[in-house]
Amino acid sequence: MTGAVRVVGIGPGPSSLVTPEASAALAEATDVVGYHRYVSRLSLSAAQVVHRSDNGDELERARHALGLAQNGARVAVVSGGDPGVFAMAAALFEAIERGPSEWRDLDVGVLPGVTAMLAAAARLGAPLGGDFCAINLSDNLKPWSLIEKRLTLAAQADFVIALYNPASRARPQQIHDAFALLRRVRPAHTLVAFATAIGRPDEAVAISSLADADPGLADMRTLVIIGASSTRRVDRWIYTPRRTEA
Amino acid sequence: MTGAVRVVGIGPGPSSLVTPEASAALAEATDVVGYHRYVSRLSLSAAQVVHRSDNGDELERARHALGLAQNGARVAVVSGGDPGVFAMAAALFEAIERGPSEWRDLDVGVLPGVTAMLAAAARLGAPLGGDFCAINLSDNLKPWSLIEKRLTLAAQADFVIALYNPASRARPQQIHDAFALLRRVRPAHTLVAFATAIGRPDEAVAISSLADADPGLADMRTLVIIGASSTRRVDRWIYTPRRTEA
Repeated sequence: MTGAVRVVGIGPGPSSLVTPEASAALAEATDVVGYHRYVSRLSLSAAQVVHRSDNGDELERARHALGLAQNGARVAVVSGGDPGVFAMAAALFEAIERGPSEWRDLDVGVLPGVTAMLAAAARLGAPLGGDFCAINLSDNLKPWSLIEKRLTLAAQADFVIALYNPASRARPQQIHDAFALLRRVRPAHTLVAFATAIGRPDEAVAISSLADADPGLADMRTLVIIGASSTRRVDRWIYTPRRTEA
Repeated sequence: MTGAVRVVGIGPGPSSLVTPEASAALAEATDVVGYHRYVSRLSLSAAQVVHRSDNGDELERARHALGLAQNGARVAVVSGGDPGVFAMAAALFEAIERGPSEWRDLDVGVLPGVTAMLAAAARLGAPLGGDFCAINLSDNLKPWSLIEKRLTLAAQADFVIALYNPASRARPQQIHDAFALLRRVRPAHTLVAFATAIGRPDEAVAISSLADADPGLADMRTLVIIGASSTRRVDRWIYTPRRTEA
């Protein structure tokens, strides 16, 4: 039997947002590798071997999965949202690049999912209706100066900006610094939305202007969206029109 | 009976990438509104009224759906990929904003889906592993000068860049102009990928350097990805490492 690895995106939370392709890959896996909070969302059979891990060391998790596959296992690596967006897929290919050459011959694939940005946008209306960017606000893996540069250029480009990982217990200050920066570049009336735990029972949404926004609303389960100059509020929704004038 | 509108994202093509939430909304709809190519992908019952349209005039399609819901219909507006990304959701809220006030009281919702960028990235490896942006290259609804500005700033920010709608029969030149611009800002060895008709039987992928890339490979079914400076090739995949040095 030949082993395989599938990096499986399970979406933002509810099972109704897990694709049939992802569900099938999870059902067929002999081994399931993942952060314990993601794994605990799944319905697995007693015959499947579950390898739970902490949130850290994605590279080690990827190596573990590849090693299991090398020994013939059909491995599903569970990823929240979409595996390619600030999640497990990049770690897998990094592990392959640095690992033994046999890993390149393994049957490896990535199964896309609904990333947090899309679920949050759907809940809010259509804020990503124009050109947009996604920035991971964590400086665990890149210098804060690069994040500042990207925020500044994105604001100048008038992109809608989606901020992933805006805050955590270890990084409470950065979303405040990011808002201070954005307030210097974007107009005060720019629309801002905080979408927390979307698709889960305790989901919460807050919409305000950039001037009035409280960055303290963001925690590690929050996706923050900064509107473009054309982003508008209509009743309980925000949206970015398809048409943009010069 | 109270009407409702759901803008339903059906993903990039295969039914295995349609979420259960989207499938349920389609099954429950009394009326299905959408571009005929998207509608023709669906399995619908004879009891459902299908309103097929051309690709154009999304605002009129949105108004049609809202009018049906006002008369009590449960309407599914079908959108390829994710409805919020260069698709039908923004048109719906624009129609609501401009329409009769009763439309604001309708039961309206957006159901997210796997957008083309995520499906293409999964097929290629993990090119969106770092910060990224999505730019619609069509100038049907915005000035080309704004697209040039965003491309330039995105390249300066070292974002991975996903280009939607890179070319069509009516707009064959713009992807060539975009590549000429990017070649002035980004190094020649920057990785570029063309992902065409991902998830469909005739899907095709091409990876090259920015210097060697042939923009003529792009058509209206292609998603183009321009790597960041850190984006790497490993065997048959490309990926952007999670870690970025200063």
